[in-house]
Amino acid sequence: MQEVLKIFKIGGGIIDDAAQLQQFLRELAKLDNKIMLVHGGGKGASQMLQDLGIEPRMVQGRRITDAATLDIVTMFYAGKTNKQVVAGLQQYGVNALGLSGADGNGIRASKRPVKEIDYGFVGDIDEQSVNTELLQRLLTAGLTPVFCAITHDGNGQLLNTNADTIASSLARALSPFYQVELHFCFEKDGVLADVADEASVIPQITPGQYQELKASGAIAAGMVPKLDNAFAALEAGVERVVIENALKINQPVKTILCRS
Amino acid sequence: MQEVLKIFKIGGGIIDDAAQLQQFLRELAKLDNKIMLVHGGGKGASQMLQDLGIEPRMVQGRRITDAATLDIVTMFYAGKTNKQVVAGLQQYGVNALGLSGADGNGIRASKRPVKEIDYGFVGDIDEQSVNTELLQRLLTAGLTPVFCAITHDGNGQLLNTNADTIASSLARALSPFYQVELHFCFEKDGVLADVADEASVIPQITPGQYQELKASGAIAAGMVPKLDNAFAALEAGVERVVIENALKINQPVKTILCRS
Repeated sequence: MQEVLKIFKIGGGIIDDAAQLQQFLRELAKLDNKIMLVHGGGKGASQMLQDLGIEPRMVQGRRITDAATLDIVTMFYAGKTNKQVVAGLQQYGVNALGLSGADGNGIRASKRPVKEIDYGFVGDIDEQSVNTELLQRLLTAGLTPVFCAITHDGNGQLLNTNADTIASSLARALSPFYQVELHFCFEKDGVLADVADEASVIPQITPGQYQELKASGAIAAGMVPKLDNAFAALEAGVERVVIENALKINQPVKTILCRS
Repeated sequence: MQEVLKIFKIGGGIIDDAAQLQQFLRELAKLDNKIMLVHGGGKGASQMLQDLGIEPRMVQGRRITDAATLDIVTMFYAGKTNKQVVAGLQQYGVNALGLSGADGNGIRASKRPVKEIDYGFVGDIDEQSVNTELLQRLLTAGLTPVFCAITHDGNGQLLNTNADTIASSLARALSPFYQVELHFCFEKDGVLADVADEASVIPQITPGQYQELKASGAIAAGMVPKLDNAFAALEAGVERVVIENALKINQPVKTILCRS
């Protein structure tokens, strides 16, 4: 019987709210499973770019990462946010250890090829590049790895990388060694049957039900890539994917995505 | 026979010069000992504080670290510089892993008590707080820990901490387990007998000779605290302290401080 490993992903909303972030970290510290955490950015980096007179460039909702922007996002994600999360978890008795993909060569990526859009220093994770030996070693030592959304290409270049993709790449890569649960944490309590009704959380969704919900337009557009990603992770061996409220991870309300 | 562990400390001068930093990292990658690296800051943080309109406050040559300054130095030291160094070492085949004192609870510190000066969020390292078990585990796994000059107090507070002190605290704490060599890297080739003559490197200094050199005023004032610190480390069990040029670590010119 493999041990359970819970991989949590939190996004910008909670990172921008110091009190909520602390509340999430306190809840996380109550779990007695092996845990990993992946965090996204938050508005701080955009604000600082603006304060420094560097205009954030977005194309189709994605930030274009030029060299100056990469510097700032690396500072925010790997510096400020990562260390605040790590120090916060330490305070609650969790022996957290912050990582970018460069650290211990944990995750390698390649600069996204330029097609219609040049995304700049944005990385797509290389297949099979997750250093599972390192992560098992850290977990076995009682450490809680905390990943920010920065990777490297192995040739000295840091790359801005999507945090959801990091979380699911980690989950897939570690699924031969653990019963991996991948938890995507949001402001809402789960996937809603009715976007206007916060209480309409769907407790469980199978791949078949997901296709129906998508076809009927019931799933909010922003959720579709996340859920596609989540079901792909299940197919790749992840035991379960959970969509839940970052502040209610120890409460029963949540959406569980199942293999069948 | 214990294994040799070389702990290198580099300062702001080399961090501010990307080409020199790469040259240092390439030289470091040539060593086949167990290695750790500690890096200081550089002018980037001060420049950014200025660009953001936050005036750096210095008292007696030390930066006063208010909350806004702590944010920026954490971003620079733990984010930008640390990840650039780690990605650079990865490029040269060294499996580097970046750490602040908060990561893995590696080094704990206490906010410096307010006496005549309130230094703000500056940490003095707690005695016996270096997590030698973690560091041995990382070194045994073939990893090269890279420390920035940020620690934590265990209660969620990050603290700006002197990089020289971090390097010598690590060296002392690890000396029961390794033959520790502590390397302080500078722009100069070693301790100079004549400050005006770059070629006047003193190859070796004993504690007795150091007292004489200090009494005669031959040692540059800025070097005194560093050398006091170095001889204290030797007394505490560190095998050897080396003062050398960051760009010449694989060349014979350097100053070796000896126990006797």
